[in-house]
Amino acid sequence: MAPKTALDSIVSLAKRRGFVYQAGEIYGGSRSAWDYGPLGVELKENIKEQWWQTFVRGREDMVGLDSSVILPKQVWEASGHVATFTDPLVECLQCHHRFRQDHLIEAYEAKKGRAPENGMESISCPNCGTTGEWTEPQMFSGLMKTFLGAVDNAEGLHYLRPETAQGIFVNFNNVVTTSRKKPPFGIGQIGKAFRNEITPGNFIFRTREFEQMEIEFFTAPAEADEWFKHWVDACWNWFTDLGINPDNMRKFDVPEDERAHYSAGTIDIEYKFGFQGNAWGELMGVANRTDYDLGSHSKASGHELAYFNQATNERYIPYVIEPSFGLTRSMMAFLVDAYTEDEAPNTKGGVDKRTVLRLDPRLAPVKAAVLPLSRNEDLSPKARDLSAELRRNWNIEFDDAGAIGRRYRRQDEIGTPFCITVDFDTLEDHAVTIRERDTMSQDRVALDKVSAYLFERLGK
Amino acid sequence: MAPKTALDSIVSLAKRRGFVYQAGEIYGGSRSAWDYGPLGVELKENIKEQWWQTFVRGREDMVGLDSSVILPKQVWEASGHVATFTDPLVECLQCHHRFRQDHLIEAYEAKKGRAPENGMESISCPNCGTTGEWTEPQMFSGLMKTFLGAVDNAEGLHYLRPETAQGIFVNFNNVVTTSRKKPPFGIGQIGKAFRNEITPGNFIFRTREFEQMEIEFFTAPAEADEWFKHWVDACWNWFTDLGINPDNMRKFDVPEDERAHYSAGTIDIEYKFGFQGNAWGELMGVANRTDYDLGSHSKASGHELAYFNQATNERYIPYVIEPSFGLTRSMMAFLVDAYTEDEAPNTKGGVDKRTVLRLDPRLAPVKAAVLPLSRNEDLSPKARDLSAELRRNWNIEFDDAGAIGRRYRRQDEIGTPFCITVDFDTLEDHAVTIRERDTMSQDRVALDKVSAYLFERLGK
Repeated sequence: MAPKTALDSIVSLAKRRGFVYQAGEIYGGSRSAWDYGPLGVELKENIKEQWWQTFVRGREDMVGLDSSVILPKQVWEASGHVATFTDPLVECLQCHHRFRQDHLIEAYEAKKGRAPENGMESISCPNCGTTGEWTEPQMFSGLMKTFLGAVDNAEGLHYLRPETAQGIFVNFNNVVTTSRKKPPFGIGQIGKAFRNEITPGNFIFRTREFEQMEIEFFTAPAEADEWFKHWVDACWNWFTDLGINPDNMRKFDVPEDERAHYSAGTIDIEYKFGFQGNAWGELMGVANRTDYDLGSHSKASGHELAYFNQATNERYIPYVIEPSFGLTRSMMAFLVDAYTEDEAPNTKGGVDKRTVLRLDPRLAPVKAAVLPLSRNEDLSPKARDLSAELRRNWNIEFDDAGAIGRRYRRQDEIGTPFCITVDFDTLEDHAVTIRERDTMSQDRVALDKVSAYLFERLGK
Repeated sequence: MAPKTALDSIVSLAKRRGFVYQAGEIYGGSRSAWDYGPLGVELKENIKEQWWQTFVRGREDMVGLDSSVILPKQVWEASGHVATFTDPLVECLQCHHRFRQDHLIEAYEAKKGRAPENGMESISCPNCGTTGEWTEPQMFSGLMKTFLGAVDNAEGLHYLRPETAQGIFVNFNNVVTTSRKKPPFGIGQIGKAFRNEITPGNFIFRTREFEQMEIEFFTAPAEADEWFKHWVDACWNWFTDLGINPDNMRKFDVPEDERAHYSAGTIDIEYKFGFQGNAWGELMGVANRTDYDLGSHSKASGHELAYFNQATNERYIPYVIEPSFGLTRSMMAFLVDAYTEDEAPNTKGGVDKRTVLRLDPRLAPVKAAVLPLSRNEDLSPKARDLSAELRRNWNIEFDDAGAIGRRYRRQDEIGTPFCITVDFDTLEDHAVTIRERDTMSQDRVALDKVSAYLFERLGK
């Protein structure tokens, strides 16, 4: 059996502690989608908040947008998705399980270090093991359909967006007019997207329903290459600034035949998730979409999506640099990267193993835990009052169940930066002990200074 | 022509200033969905943040969740939605437009003050005006379908959620186990929901794609009535605390025959939006869902969604009190309620009319605007530096285009609480003038004290 990886540990921790649940689990569950529990939703919200602050609110050259999930089919015809957003599907002739042909070939290459000599004849079915008995590949659309209106007909056919980007492109003129921005400027959006993946998998890495954080940055065509570089660096730095070890990231210059239909150049940032076979997976990508999208929608809609430069008296269709992040992939990377096992002193003078998520405090789902030393009619109310005060500003846990060491372990395991212990001395000195997660160092802090202490270390 | 209402003004302002755009506008648009522009997305995020802080993070008895939009059909069969989430549809025999029969009858009653004597024979088609020529009503499902997997068959049939609630119910055991909460406690969720409305309309009030903010609060059956009252009050207070005039809100005790299939009692909070015909519209509702949902899913899934009380050695299915908010309806109410027209002094010693959105500063999409008195090589860089500093904490606009009075008007109209003017004195005294939106009072504040000044008045 393969040794347990950080990824295995995170998958198990995520389920056990309420970061991530399988969607529809009581009805048998699926690999298509996941639900985010109390800790998962906080972590996810914190990632979104950091992203929005760094890339949207924090930049003069950016604005935000929130567009619809369901868009009419004309949008997806013009964007090229109806024609080209397809994957080759093969079916095992023995067990009738279906797979993406390109994924089967990639897996073979990752395992053997070379391409399969006899094409699909060399490849075994991951489900039943039969080798080389496959249907011819059929192209399969990744778009999810739905029908609006009273009848399921062509008139009512709409698609769920496979990317948030198109909602930005079709609103280009609206944003330029109402926000009075001019290139170089960008529009950021966070939202759900849907793809009918044949083979979802690897936990929350590839799912049919997922969240994207996307930027479409509009530039004069001549400045596109420069902005492309800017955005690759800015995205890389966002991850490292939030604590990802740069040794676990790499850039991948996507070759032309693997790029999306709209891209004149793509650099992916990959993270070493530790998957079986190929450890690395795409975290986000920066693509040069040229004037493909604005041009296509201009043609299809009859509305020219262009910018008129009054200074030079020129009208042009901007080029688009697109940094596109997977939110839940980012979450998975932050979790895997934060996963650590070390040792903590126990009350018997020895050491215990502990699991600690060294999440950046800005991302940690719980900012502080308030722990009365024991469940007691004097300590518990004091601790509850303190947690009620702190809850005005942060997500706080109150926990009075079990030995204090065990409660520390529980908080370490979910990445809580501070544990605040209310003990019997508190009743005399009106102070508490605040323990820091990583160093386990302790400070004695007056009760009325706890908010200020946390504020200094956590921000609001 | 009817006089222009605050609602009319808001619809026009929202489009003109980039709060709300029609979805897919360049392809003809639709009444089904709306896109939120740079100001709209900030306002919406601020409402969500206030809601989450008040009802989830800020309460010890609440946790959050984020569940999937697409759920297998078993979930919607068990919940009763497949069987009963239907509306009566009628079609005009002349123009073949379709309408919800109950909406036609309601509109007639609102207009005439009485029920139609001859049923549908009295009712005219809102599209072509023909009276009384209708098909028999047919029941029409409000659920939107989609298909997962390679073939569009019954196996792949899934529904887009018409409410976020079911994602909470099916995760009840997961949350109880991982968060160790026990009744009374609740789970909050913010997310998109989808309903195949026959007659979307009234701007962002009724759309096919919309956002909900829902709480499912689990209690012992004997305590359900008490918690019902608690939540009606808590919801009412949330709106008034954020500035809604209580004179524009009312409670409506929904009669049994108008309640949803799961409800043993519902109180709606309505807001006086100012629609034609009936001015009032539902803002949110609190329903007593009893043990209907947990009971139905227990039966259908074979997993008992129950709570075991160790103290009394009793197992019971909790009752559910559900406060369910429409996010975009709330946004519409905050906008309409904030809309004011008054007068502001102009530079000629007279007064100008001004439009001002008196939004609570916590909700305002832009927290402050930095305005150099004129576009100038000394003032503009100073103003840009200040806005860059402030942007670390808040959403800030920089505007150096046009007369200062006109720029004040622009900010008043979008509800910006503070305008900060960098003038020629600034180059000498290193101070700026900060103008407050509602009172138009002005303070002279040192440049290095501006952040502290705003922090005191806005929070972070």
